[in-house]
Amino acid sequence: MDTEAFAPIIENGPQSGRLVLVCEHAANLIPPAWGDLGLTAAQRTLHIAWDIGALGLARALAARLGAVLVHAPVSRLVVDLNRAPDRAGAMPSRSELHDIPGNSGLTPAERLRRTQAVYLPFHNRLHDLIAGRIALGLKPVIVTVHSFTPVWFRQPRAVDFGVIHDADPGLALAIAAAAAATTPLNSALNAPYSAADEVTHTLRLHATPYGLPNAMLEVRQDLIADPAAQGRMADVLAPVVNMGLEEIQKQAKAG
Amino acid sequence: MDTEAFAPIIENGPQSGRLVLVCEHAANLIPPAWGDLGLTAAQRTLHIAWDIGALGLARALAARLGAVLVHAPVSRLVVDLNRAPDRAGAMPSRSELHDIPGNSGLTPAERLRRTQAVYLPFHNRLHDLIAGRIALGLKPVIVTVHSFTPVWFRQPRAVDFGVIHDADPGLALAIAAAAAATTPLNSALNAPYSAADEVTHTLRLHATPYGLPNAMLEVRQDLIADPAAQGRMADVLAPVVNMGLEEIQKQAKAG
Repeated sequence: MDTEAFAPIIENGPQSGRLVLVCEHAANLIPPAWGDLGLTAAQRTLHIAWDIGALGLARALAARLGAVLVHAPVSRLVVDLNRAPDRAGAMPSRSELHDIPGNSGLTPAERLRRTQAVYLPFHNRLHDLIAGRIALGLKPVIVTVHSFTPVWFRQPRAVDFGVIHDADPGLALAIAAAAAATTPLNSALNAPYSAADEVTHTLRLHATPYGLPNAMLEVRQDLIADPAAQGRMADVLAPVVNMGLEEIQKQAKAG
Repeated sequence: MDTEAFAPIIENGPQSGRLVLVCEHAANLIPPAWGDLGLTAAQRTLHIAWDIGALGLARALAARLGAVLVHAPVSRLVVDLNRAPDRAGAMPSRSELHDIPGNSGLTPAERLRRTQAVYLPFHNRLHDLIAGRIALGLKPVIVTVHSFTPVWFRQPRAVDFGVIHDADPGLALAIAAAAAATTPLNSALNAPYSAADEVTHTLRLHATPYGLPNAMLEVRQDLIADPAAQGRMADVLAPVVNMGLEEIQKQAKAG
């Protein structure tokens, strides 16, 4: 079956700073090819479909940091761009408390179709952007922007801001230290989950192979529920990310 | 400047076995857009331009192992597909004993042009193939096929067959052990160079992020100088690669 390809959306493309922001779970759109996946309209607005508030926060950070932003146009319920396509979480038949009927018993052909329609266009265009900046000598830094639900399997989560790293912890450590030192946020390294939970797939694909500094930011959704809150959080986090970037540049010069 | 894009060549595409063979240095072609890079016709046939004999060996292995083969149509002197595009070795102004005049003083724009014309089409099409096979549940295994010159900086090299690994050494160890146990080849692990020399870029991009078993095979060029010799070497190495694959499957079941 031929399916339309869904390319990522790129904002601030001409920015020539080091920072590349990525938002894999920006959208809750389920394109017509996949109907409603058997979900109600209400379910399709929940955190199972996207990272609520993450795109608004990412845009506000991109504006404050002079960063290019790459974000996805399709819900992670079709295919989670931050998972390898053969993992259960890539096209989940259940997410937290919800069955996803349209993802039950997927054939290999349907897994391939979603991979070709959504996963590969996203990651190959992101690769184009990152490798192009590497070729230009811009030494990109990859930061992914995520949000997490305040209540998970009926348990409240206390952390406000998590910073997760893949193989190279340098930037994540520097950002977490800056957040702890300069903000009132309850921040934590590798929370509410870590690379061991396979949540760093995008960093593994795009940052680690090139030795690029990288981090995954996670903000609790009730703190970025509307554009005003997203702007306030970006006012807090943009200086924190900048302090992290300055720290790793200092370390690179010293090393 | 608009430049033609050079896609990789894919042979045995319908094969549905686990093994994906990759030959990044298959060709010594310098497309017209780059003239002769200031090299003589004789220089353009040397090991600095390609891995002599590697494509013939890779094809002979693919036939014996039922493997898909992905190989590059352009010389590594235009852009080395097995290096990140900002490394000196990616578009080298000198290679072993030879100056490459056409690679001297490259502008960032020219580095970007080569990256977009040759590097990205190769790696993104290879990614399409590998991620598609992952989505189908085929659990690909990535093996790159290379050759090395018998004399390097006027020093002869004694090793016949080297096996190099990236982060996960499992398959390389199993192949090297099988070669030592069952062939007369002077074989060695991580020789004549290793991941520390940044020669595992393709494995880092395509195998390591997905946790795929991987290895880089290196054969001395005088042992695969013509099609008959390539066939004889493939007769020796195909069973060795198969023993390596069987060993890691055994280990995966036990683990």
